[in-house]
Amino acid sequence: MDAIERLATLFEKFPGIGPRQAGRFVHYLLRSSPAIRQELARSITALGNQVKQCSECRRYHDGDSALCNRCSSTTRDRAILMIVATDADADAIERSHTYNGTYFILGGTIALGNEKNPRIREADLVKCIEKRSNELREIILALPANVEGDTTSSRVHELLRPLIKDGQVFVSSLGRGLSTGAELEYADPDTIKNALKNRA
Amino acid sequence: MDAIERLATLFEKFPGIGPRQAGRFVHYLLRSSPAIRQELARSITALGNQVKQCSECRRYHDGDSALCNRCSSTTRDRAILMIVATDADADAIERSHTYNGTYFILGGTIALGNEKNPRIREADLVKCIEKRSNELREIILALPANVEGDTTSSRVHELLRPLIKDGQVFVSSLGRGLSTGAELEYADPDTIKNALKNRA
Amino acid sequence: MDAIERLATLFEKFPGIGPRQAGRFVHYLLRSSPAIRQELARSITALGNQVKQCSECRRYHDGDSALCNRCSSTTRDRAILMIVATDADADAIERSHTYNGTYFILGGTIALGNEKNPRIREADLVKCIEKRSNELREIILALPANVEGDTTSSRVHELLRPLIKDGQVFVSSLGRGLSTGAELEYADPDTIKNALKNRA
Amino acid sequence: MDAIERLATLFEKFPGIGPRQAGRFVHYLLRSSPAIRQELARSITALGNQVKQCSECRRYHDGDSALCNRCSSTTRDRAILMIVATDADADAIERSHTYNGTYFILGGTIALGNEKNPRIREADLVKCIEKRSNELREIILALPANVEGDTTSSRVHELLRPLIKDGQVFVSSLGRGLSTGAELEYADPDTIKNALKNRA
Repeated sequence: MDAIERLATLFEKFPGIGPRQAGRFVHYLLRSSPAIRQELARSITALGNQVKQCSECRRYHDGDSALCNRCSSTTRDRAILMIVATDADADAIERSHTYNGTYFILGGTIALGNEKNPRIREADLVKCIEKRSNELREIILALPANVEGDTTSSRVHELLRPLIKDGQVFVSSLGRGLSTGAELEYADPDTIKNALKNRA
Repeated sequence: MDAIERLATLFEKFPGIGPRQAGRFVHYLLRSSPAIRQELARSITALGNQVKQCSECRRYHDGDSALCNRCSSTTRDRAILMIVATDADADAIERSHTYNGTYFILGGTIALGNEKNPRIREADLVKCIEKRSNELREIILALPANVEGDTTSSRVHELLRPLIKDGQVFVSSLGRGLSTGAELEYADPDTIKNALKNRA
Repeated sequence: MDAIERLATLFEKFPGIGPRQAGRFVHYLLRSSPAIRQELARSITALGNQVKQCSECRRYHDGDSALCNRCSSTTRDRAILMIVATDADADAIERSHTYNGTYFILGGTIALGNEKNPRIREADLVKCIEKRSNELREIILALPANVEGDTTSSRVHELLRPLIKDGQVFVSSLGRGLSTGAELEYADPDTIKNALKNRA
Repeated sequence: MDAIERLATLFEKFPGIGPRQAGRFVHYLLRSSPAIRQELARSITALGNQVKQCSECRRYHDGDSALCNRCSSTTRDRAILMIVATDADADAIERSHTYNGTYFILGGTIALGNEKNPRIREADLVKCIEKRSNELREIILALPANVEGDTTSSRVHELLRPLIKDGQVFVSSLGRGLSTGAELEYADPDTIKNALKNRA
């Protein structure tokens, strides 16, 4: 395999990238200056050295400190912990400017049938909750509203049960119902059911 | 204008139909048998004679009775009234098998800026609530989660205020939050805000 | 089945219309005035009385004459006949303002495997060619560039063979190649092959 | 700007990649092993050292030789030269298995209004034609069927004129017409015009 094909093969493993776009990436780089290729190669190598996972929320972050800027912040409400699947989910919550608590990033969701071999950060989550048991008052499960999210939610509830003394920490899940822009005529029965149950 | 064009022009007024599809409808009818065209013409004419609006919920229904089968049902919970925009919305609620109360069909929603000249059944709604004031315990506003729905909701609240004695009828709206299948990463800030507010 | 459902069922047979849009058509008519419903019913009935098929090209047209305005025109070149699948195809050719000959409308295309039972106007085509054999100099097959079009084209060639004396009528097909806007990178091998063969 | 953002910014310059997908690429690499990141960085750097442009057709290729395997092939017909915009276009022609001549890659197309400052390989093209003037019998312009392709085609014709003795080299362009799968009803007027002109 030659250099063009080898690089295309690596780009094909990128999320959402097929052979055609992988080939276009290679040609973009061929037409770019050597300086740009060098910068890209250096930045990719730098990820391993410069980016750490926050020792508390497991988010990827830059810098020398063990804690990310959210976990070391003194203005966030450390009584609330939101458990999300990915860094991107936490970023979406941040963009909504409606939450000022802390996070734990599971690193993904569990597929139904894979509960025995979940690729989420179970041990890290347990450690995080144990360590913060004195300050936590509420844990919010903010997982996607699909089968994987529900499977993950069940597993997280199982993990939390032995860690939490009744009445001391309130465990909640994000509300379900009509999302912005939803029209009843096209809503699925589950969404209607949730919207009715959560009417207020 | 000839017969083909005249019919195409009428089909163009159908919801969601452009000139090209209108033309295709005409050709479909041209290739159909005279019997099918006759049946279609008769069925369209029959609408006016055979279909009534239910005198209570304003839904279009067939038959000689003043009340539709939902409003004349003896197994529905007449203490609850759900206010929806269209017949299709009520049908969607029915398909979800999660509601067994009664309905009122507004006949549409109000566009922002058109509050003064709303084309919804305001007078009929007021009459319906007045007539049923003794039996009603809850009114659920089930309007689309968009600007028109919110504008309509405000107007309906205004209409209901003088009709309802405090504490006697609970007025609610469908819950907002993550709809089935929603992923946090792509959720809009309003949906996240509602999902957080309605966590449970 | 009641009047609403019966009409919805008839609309569901319209090309490209599913149950949901059929229901929306019925509600559109319910909310329309009786006058509009009457006009629609009358226009549908009128199709059978007022619309004829042109005795020459088999196109649907309005009016009392046996010939449509294209076939009775004195400014069209009657030495050229274009054979198309549908009225809509002939209309598209007309809109391109690049053709001033005459047409024959086959009424559809033949699916592969259905050659024995074609639902195209074979007898009418043969009659048309026989009647016009003295004036015709060219016959253009303008069929879609897909399998059905190719199957139909083979069948039409078979029908034409005994009718045409060699050298007297030129039988051609529309050119194949890059269509407007096409990019080579995404073109299929057949289109590239045709574009190469028809280079000029 | 930190390491995550810097890399995301570089990925955003990739063709067709927006901020969201750029971020997803970075997270994919964060979750990948250091070995995969190293291999990617090395492969990007290697492009500059291992990939050359063919001295004749200007295609990017691997290896030590000045000529790519197409230009050094002894089984290709060197009497024909096809001028294409990109490597990907030449690859598409190769995949169609209908051409066995040689290529020249312009490196892009000219936008209307940018004729004075074209970013295509004009000097290289002129040099290539001059050098091969004895062997060439046909030059095929295989440019996209859009405005940029037509603008580029005009410019290439201008460049070729002084280089080619009349009657010695035939200059052609790819044929235009119905592309595979095209239906007349939806074809644009230009495509119909070309399909009619190129009928055969």
